[in-house]
Amino acid sequence: MKLIKDASEMTALAQTARAKGRVVAFVPTMGYLHSGHIKLVEAGRQEAGKDGLVALSIFVNPTQFGPKEDFTTYPRDIERDMKMAAGAGVDVIFIPRPDDMYTEGFKTFVNVEALSDRLCGAERPGHFRGVATVVVKLFNIVCPQIAVFGKKDFQQFVIIKRLVQDLNFPVKIIGVDTVRDPDGLALSSRNTRLSPEERQIALALPRALNIAKEAFLRGEKSAPAIAGSVKNILEKHRLLSVDYVNVVSVDALEAIDFVERDAVVLAAVRVGSTRLIDNVVLSC
Amino acid sequence: MKLIKDASEMTALAQTARAKGRVVAFVPTMGYLHSGHIKLVEAGRQEAGKDGLVALSIFVNPTQFGPKEDFTTYPRDIERDMKMAAGAGVDVIFIPRPDDMYTEGFKTFVNVEALSDRLCGAERPGHFRGVATVVVKLFNIVCPQIAVFGKKDFQQFVIIKRLVQDLNFPVKIIGVDTVRDPDGLALSSRNTRLSPEERQIALALPRALNIAKEAFLRGEKSAPAIAGSVKNILEKHRLLSVDYVNVVSVDALEAIDFVERDAVVLAAVRVGSTRLIDNVVLSC
Repeated sequence: MKLIKDASEMTALAQTARAKGRVVAFVPTMGYLHSGHIKLVEAGRQEAGKDGLVALSIFVNPTQFGPKEDFTTYPRDIERDMKMAAGAGVDVIFIPRPDDMYTEGFKTFVNVEALSDRLCGAERPGHFRGVATVVVKLFNIVCPQIAVFGKKDFQQFVIIKRLVQDLNFPVKIIGVDTVRDPDGLALSSRNTRLSPEERQIALALPRALNIAKEAFLRGEKSAPAIAGSVKNILEKHRLLSVDYVNVVSVDALEAIDFVERDAVVLAAVRVGSTRLIDNVVLSC
Repeated sequence: MKLIKDASEMTALAQTARAKGRVVAFVPTMGYLHSGHIKLVEAGRQEAGKDGLVALSIFVNPTQFGPKEDFTTYPRDIERDMKMAAGAGVDVIFIPRPDDMYTEGFKTFVNVEALSDRLCGAERPGHFRGVATVVVKLFNIVCPQIAVFGKKDFQQFVIIKRLVQDLNFPVKIIGVDTVRDPDGLALSSRNTRLSPEERQIALALPRALNIAKEAFLRGEKSAPAIAGSVKNILEKHRLLSVDYVNVVSVDALEAIDFVERDAVVLAAVRVGSTRLIDNVVLSC
């Protein structure tokens, strides 16, 4: 596995690979890798083929963190990440220098309107603008034909698909289903912050979403009823606070009254000082 | 010369050319071509080389026009444009369908902050956001290594250079000096709207900028004095109204007091219902 820190070196390597007919698959991450990321790498490899070039980036992107958020304390362990990435068959690991990504006088932002303002965006103003901007930057540096994102960050996934369509990026976006620990908790780099007690409380989130899905499968089509039942379960826990629970359409993320087409239950909670998100798709 | 209307066909053609080692040079225009555009094509050819692929697009981009601006009446003559482009040695002319460029649910915009709000941006809110967005779209469709812009639209040129740097587009931006008619008027597709009388009045714009440059060369370094002298000349004309005259730094477009580094005098006026812009660089 090759380590690259220089953006122009990354671009040159990708373009050389493409000129030789290799498919470049890209997995952008903020590091502190877990099995969910490894699934993304595997999906990238499958799409790119045995001779493809699988690139994984690690960049904790400052522009997607609010001033009171956890940018400085976001978990980082580059040594461990390098070993995991190499073990997963990553060909190139790209770890740009922050100063190279945001040079003096930086002032260009990409915004996917409407989709970025609701749900997690309402709670975290500017978050998805930062995500969209860094994804465009990374696409331009890595020049992939394929990019892989996890569906745990469902809103992000929808925003990136919209961005790629709207801005005509010649990149195929692959979404990978959420990977969970055996106890049901969706993998997240931030899980490491949960105390054992908090982790037990956090399990209410996947449990509540699962119950919602079962209710839907038994015939419950009312979006407010589904969201309400999730909230009821979550709010029983004194040490868990609900940011939002919403049932929305899968593409436009618009509030719906009845689940008549594919929808998704999106939820965000706080357990102690840790913010967790999860979702479950209701397929019609 | 090949005519392409389909975005994915354009992308495929450019990528095939690049895979064969050809350099793709791109000249985005809104059509109604004049000798200024031809200079851009020539510059593109020179950079791309004899074996390069020179692509020119024609697209009157709705998102860069305000609701009260001249989108519907912007001059158009595709037949004439095709002949001129072919004569200038364009290899591919790309004329996208408006519905393909802005599909239903479009909501992604690129904005170069600060640079887009001043000067022409103050007069035309959203204009440069529309320009930045369509340039990103066209870059992603045409996949050029080189793109050529005229310096008559000086603020646009600065914004695009900033955008390319900020978003890491692997595209080299070439700026081409303004082409003028023998009477001094900068070429613009909108000049066609001027009556003969209006055209005589419009000549005050290049004349005033020329006088400003001469004053600078004789030792005048005060930016307000230079801008003031330009305004004085322009305001003598009853049928000409001044939108702005500003002396700013060439890269940041920031107001300056003294011309101690390279600066540019930017001016916008209205003659009748036609808005004209022009500029002159003051090199230190």
